[in-house]
Amino acid sequence: MAYERIRLASLKDKVMPAEQAALLIKNGMVVGSSGFTKAGDSKAVLPAFAARAKRENLKITLMTGASLGHDTDGKLAEAGALSKRMPFQVDRTLRNKINAGEVLFIDQHLSESAELLHSKNLPPVDIAVIEVAFIDRDGSIVPTTSVGNSVTFAALAKQVILEINTAVSEDVYGIHDIYQAEDYPHRNVIPIVAPWNKIGRKTIPLDPSKVVGIVFTDMLDSPADIAVADSKTTAIAKHILNFFENEVLLGHLTDRLLPIQAGIGKVANAVLMGFKDSNFYDLTMFSEVLQDSTFDLIDAGKLSFASASSVTVSADCYQRVFGDLQKYREKFVLRPQNISNTPGLIRRLGIIAINTAIEFDLYGNVNSTHISGSNIMNGIGGSGDFARNAYLSIFVTQAASKENAISHVLPMVSHVDHTEHDVDILVTDVGLADLRGLAPRERAQKIIDNCVHPDYKEQLQSYFSRACERGGHTPHLLEEAFSWHLRLAEAGTMKK
Amino acid sequence: MAYERIRLASLKDKVMPAEQAALLIKNGMVVGSSGFTKAGDSKAVLPAFAARAKRENLKITLMTGASLGHDTDGKLAEAGALSKRMPFQVDRTLRNKINAGEVLFIDQHLSESAELLHSKNLPPVDIAVIEVAFIDRDGSIVPTTSVGNSVTFAALAKQVILEINTAVSEDVYGIHDIYQAEDYPHRNVIPIVAPWNKIGRKTIPLDPSKVVGIVFTDMLDSPADIAVADSKTTAIAKHILNFFENEVLLGHLTDRLLPIQAGIGKVANAVLMGFKDSNFYDLTMFSEVLQDSTFDLIDAGKLSFASASSVTVSADCYQRVFGDLQKYREKFVLRPQNISNTPGLIRRLGIIAINTAIEFDLYGNVNSTHISGSNIMNGIGGSGDFARNAYLSIFVTQAASKENAISHVLPMVSHVDHTEHDVDILVTDVGLADLRGLAPRERAQKIIDNCVHPDYKEQLQSYFSRACERGGHTPHLLEEAFSWHLRLAEAGTMKK
Repeated sequence: MAYERIRLASLKDKVMPAEQAALLIKNGMVVGSSGFTKAGDSKAVLPAFAARAKRENLKITLMTGASLGHDTDGKLAEAGALSKRMPFQVDRTLRNKINAGEVLFIDQHLSESAELLHSKNLPPVDIAVIEVAFIDRDGSIVPTTSVGNSVTFAALAKQVILEINTAVSEDVYGIHDIYQAEDYPHRNVIPIVAPWNKIGRKTIPLDPSKVVGIVFTDMLDSPADIAVADSKTTAIAKHILNFFENEVLLGHLTDRLLPIQAGIGKVANAVLMGFKDSNFYDLTMFSEVLQDSTFDLIDAGKLSFASASSVTVSADCYQRVFGDLQKYREKFVLRPQNISNTPGLIRRLGIIAINTAIEFDLYGNVNSTHISGSNIMNGIGGSGDFARNAYLSIFVTQAASKENAISHVLPMVSHVDHTEHDVDILVTDVGLADLRGLAPRERAQKIIDNCVHPDYKEQLQSYFSRACERGGHTPHLLEEAFSWHLRLAEAGTMKK
Repeated sequence: MAYERIRLASLKDKVMPAEQAALLIKNGMVVGSSGFTKAGDSKAVLPAFAARAKRENLKITLMTGASLGHDTDGKLAEAGALSKRMPFQVDRTLRNKINAGEVLFIDQHLSESAELLHSKNLPPVDIAVIEVAFIDRDGSIVPTTSVGNSVTFAALAKQVILEINTAVSEDVYGIHDIYQAEDYPHRNVIPIVAPWNKIGRKTIPLDPSKVVGIVFTDMLDSPADIAVADSKTTAIAKHILNFFENEVLLGHLTDRLLPIQAGIGKVANAVLMGFKDSNFYDLTMFSEVLQDSTFDLIDAGKLSFASASSVTVSADCYQRVFGDLQKYREKFVLRPQNISNTPGLIRRLGIIAINTAIEFDLYGNVNSTHISGSNIMNGIGGSGDFARNAYLSIFVTQAASKENAISHVLPMVSHVDHTEHDVDILVTDVGLADLRGLAPRERAQKIIDNCVHPDYKEQLQSYFSRACERGGHTPHLLEEAFSWHLRLAEAGTMKK
């Protein structure tokens, strides 16, 4: 039964246990693996390699689409198996190793990893590990719940290990749009002009002679954690929906809006769920990850089409979507992340991008990745691909946290991922600051008036006023710019 | 003779003196004006308005392509005529007013201003002032030495004033490629796949009924200042050329390289001039501004084609190019800046981007705009459009200046314009740091080893080592991060 998923007969003798396949990964190799936000990751070979690496003291460079599920990043980190990791992660154990300097991490725009490999700006991939639903007769492969960087890994890796996941229905054939842009200097246009355009093949091309191992697995993706909306996320979502409604009133947008990109997490889910009881209709998404809310909106008749690189949903939603794929297959498509996130398409389609910040500052610079300047949390992911090129770039965060000991609106962010040039709208539970057409000093006053937590309003106004007295296009007091972070470290609160 | 440049007879009665045209600009208006890096700017109406504004205490919001020549920005600023200015400037008087908080400045990616206007994310343009070579029979207009944002201003402004510059030959007809992407949500692909592709019209469409005034002028653009290469710029250029040669040896690039974008100034000129005596050939440019060096390389047979939004050259070079346009007209093209700088084309063509930094830090974050965090110098210009989307993003600066009292390589930049995600190669006169494929801690050591001035090497190594002891993905000591800037302010030197 499982062997029927190898439709190219000559590959059937490549089947082996995961432990044997893991032996093909040698010390020092660059490994490219499927997996994007827990979806479609390696469920057998990478964990088997982690166990082996621990015993044999092996280290690899691991590239993926984005984060992995099933604690695989944690297991690899724990085993000391990672010398270098890119382009994204969300694992607590791995994060600690990165911050301790034990694992080198490259935090990359998700659209760029494949570009860097194709243009030889990164070392070549020695071996790829790719989860597939089945191998087609020509040796090409059908991915599962994500595409990520698998097209590039399949094309460029010297050797390929395939994990055929029999828990994934072969019906996923056709939900992927596989397209790889030409190498420089002969790249043509990517002919997508609407989220629902399909421009590629249904399978990922693969030279069968590169396949060195095939492993069967039978395990679903790690389910998404569905965080329940709280009063803060609900408030943020409400501010954003009110803003959209007003843009429609002003004639800037129609009730269809423009294609939406939403980052991961509860704020994005809350915003999307807010559309359910709104006047908006015929909405579309052009995003990285599709979460439960996407399928809820499809069911509610509000969302017509969603394009992304992965489906990362709860266990219930997984059954709903993949158990009845006939119902949803014309409603969404999964693309390589160098297509889902590519700057040209984001600008061409006019995306409304909603992403989460860790903190933002007086002038609208955004920190998406670092705690107090040095320690990374997750990574920039695709937020930069979208924010820079979007029609509207929106960032959200809570105004304050930890019983208001931490303000997320600050004099200066301790790390910059998105500069003020790329930030149109900032939102906290307190309110929304529309920064379009404003100069830095105007942005600052708007942010103080609309976004900062009341406990910090006077303190931030004082910083701004004293900085303005000293002057400048973007007035700052460098000796005091990080005083809030330093006070938190010393006194446990940012409050004066 | 001059009237023959108005080929649509019905417009001939719109001719008026500049002072009369300046009366059409009312207090509080949003004015969109031609002009990109001194080229093709308004030479009569804006200066006349400056004089009037001073007498009558008027203020406008002024948008242009980029900077203006003939001290026009200075005159307007001096007259108190500017309430808001975007997206770029280089004028000393204006800069001082901006830093004093007297003029609000919006520092914008040069590709974005037109987008923001078309998508109504900026207030509408009340009146446009556009320099043209002539008005065609259908009322469409032929720009002069730049295109900038004039296509957008002509399309969207409620009223239009034209300055017909009789000092510019009508032979410029055909050197422009005028194309405007469709508005959302119906935008199509921009069908450029090589720098030499011409996809548009030769003239800018304009509804003649919007023309409220026509003014004749007879004055050339302000010439570019040609700074003579010094030992530092020569050293930087040599490092970059050696790097390119090595990339060819490694098989990453061919002797044709990929299309080059070069920022303004003597380093860019020095790099381009370095190609003259190299093995590189059949080079192309896809840039914002064409400087003398572009035409020198064309003359030397090294450069086959150059695409940009303006020609900003010395007086000698101006005569050479525009006095013999037949020789050069197939060798270059001028485009709207939302085409020359658009992210999708920069990624599609695989640009090699070379831009100038004011300072960069240990991890490769770049400050292109601010002095000590608060005071703006010029603006980000197109550097962000290119750096983010380029095949290779290179930033250059001198290692130290002011008798080495200032290090341009620092623990932390005082303002971030380009994050480490967007910076591949850093170069100072000391050396070149190839940061591709490196994690932050590796980047830091490479920058210390290769780029920092010897006087600051130990000091920077000490900061990095102590920060690493405390830990982090991007180790910093927040209490000390700006100590170099603060020491400079207090003691006149960054040296400990």
